[in-house]
Amino acid sequence: MITLTLIGIGTGNPDHLTLAAASEIAAADLILIPLKDAGKEDLAGLRRSICDRHAGPRTGIVEFPLPRRDSDDPDYFQAVERWHDAIAVAWQDQITAHLPDLSGRVALLVWGDPALYDSTLRIADRLRLPVTRRVIPGITAIQALCAAHAIPLNQIGAPVQITTGRRLRDHGWPEGADTLAVMLDGGCAFLTLPPDDLHIWWGAFLGMPQQILDHGPLPECGPRIARTRATARAAHGWIMDIYLLRRA
Amino acid sequence: MITLTLIGIGTGNPDHLTLAAASEIAAADLILIPLKDAGKEDLAGLRRSICDRHAGPRTGIVEFPLPRRDSDDPDYFQAVERWHDAIAVAWQDQITAHLPDLSGRVALLVWGDPALYDSTLRIADRLRLPVTRRVIPGITAIQALCAAHAIPLNQIGAPVQITTGRRLRDHGWPEGADTLAVMLDGGCAFLTLPPDDLHIWWGAFLGMPQQILDHGPLPECGPRIARTRATARAAHGWIMDIYLLRRA
Repeated sequence: MITLTLIGIGTGNPDHLTLAAASEIAAADLILIPLKDAGKEDLAGLRRSICDRHAGPRTGIVEFPLPRRDSDDPDYFQAVERWHDAIAVAWQDQITAHLPDLSGRVALLVWGDPALYDSTLRIADRLRLPVTRRVIPGITAIQALCAAHAIPLNQIGAPVQITTGRRLRDHGWPEGADTLAVMLDGGCAFLTLPPDDLHIWWGAFLGMPQQILDHGPLPECGPRIARTRATARAAHGWIMDIYLLRRA
Repeated sequence: MITLTLIGIGTGNPDHLTLAAASEIAAADLILIPLKDAGKEDLAGLRRSICDRHAGPRTGIVEFPLPRRDSDDPDYFQAVERWHDAIAVAWQDQITAHLPDLSGRVALLVWGDPALYDSTLRIADRLRLPVTRRVIPGITAIQALCAAHAIPLNQIGAPVQITTGRRLRDHGWPEGADTLAVMLDGGCAFLTLPPDDLHIWWGAFLGMPQQILDHGPLPECGPRIARTRATARAAHGWIMDIYLLRRA
């Protein structure tokens, strides 16, 4: 029987790893490291350095090319479905090649936490192998952002909404929300909001040596963040960022 | 100069601790452990066992009685303000007693993550000492719940709302929400919802040996969880639980 453990590794600081995550890595028979697009080698590099530090003597570490999503498919959801199918096949190929008895502990290192805006749980459901799935939680970008700014996520007794840049751009500020954590925003959706009474806390490359932070009232801070973001993205070839918006 | 580090320690599994948290504990000059009400000795016990495992040779570990909130005060917010003032004074008394030079590293071990439904950041703002505040994020109950059930927190590209039992009871299901993570619910607010198309994933004592999980359609599962919760609370003398609700 295969045990497939999805291990949250945090957002780029190797010390975000939990003791449970380190133990799982040490006990793994096989760790699968997906190689993504050019420009994001830093991410595979972080996974490799975590493995170097924590993998056990019996642990096989295998890199494989991650299938790409067809960005020309006009049906976004169908394209994602096909992409997840292809990734499941790629995992399965690696597992059967390296654990031909179909027995052992396989681990995948997941950016942030496997529960939050991540597809690995849904991909694991597509495997046509008898697997037991396990999840080890990891520090999310939201937590790394709040910690870096030393701010609470919520106001006292008040709710928080976690959403995406796409939703914020398409649907505007959600009815009734006071605090919004925005993930997966490649296009500075905060610039589309009426900025009147909003405060923003922003962070990029959280937990990494190149971490950048900014915060302030949205009218003055928003355009500045957009400029910083464009410059940093050009300099590094990629960027991962997140922000919190709160009504004053 | 005092550095005050608020260290998230997760929800009860000592292996939820991050490597960064373990290093901070080892490097601390003083760790303050609040002693809460009778019946929650388990929580102070977990903090003690984490200190036993990770504290350094120079680390002083000091337990102090946590001031109690005046539950008779009719003004809830005013009572909380006064309570936080009293806790800040208690911290300050311990810091000045044990680090009379007002120099060194002080750590507080915070259940879950200091950013989420926790008051330590707000209490730290009240200290009348020159302190540098730092935050080390920790695994929240929401993450421990999703990991234990091996489920994603969000649906694909969809938002998530984090709220409290009090708000759910007083305001009902939030407009536009599909997924709701409910914290701080001492009264099974899920029983007050029209249960038609809702699914619940519940967990108590997450990460601890006595962990209990249940999930299913709310109409059949809700009353069962309420019974399980009452029985477990009576058996242990206390309970910490959390749940996720999702529209089908």
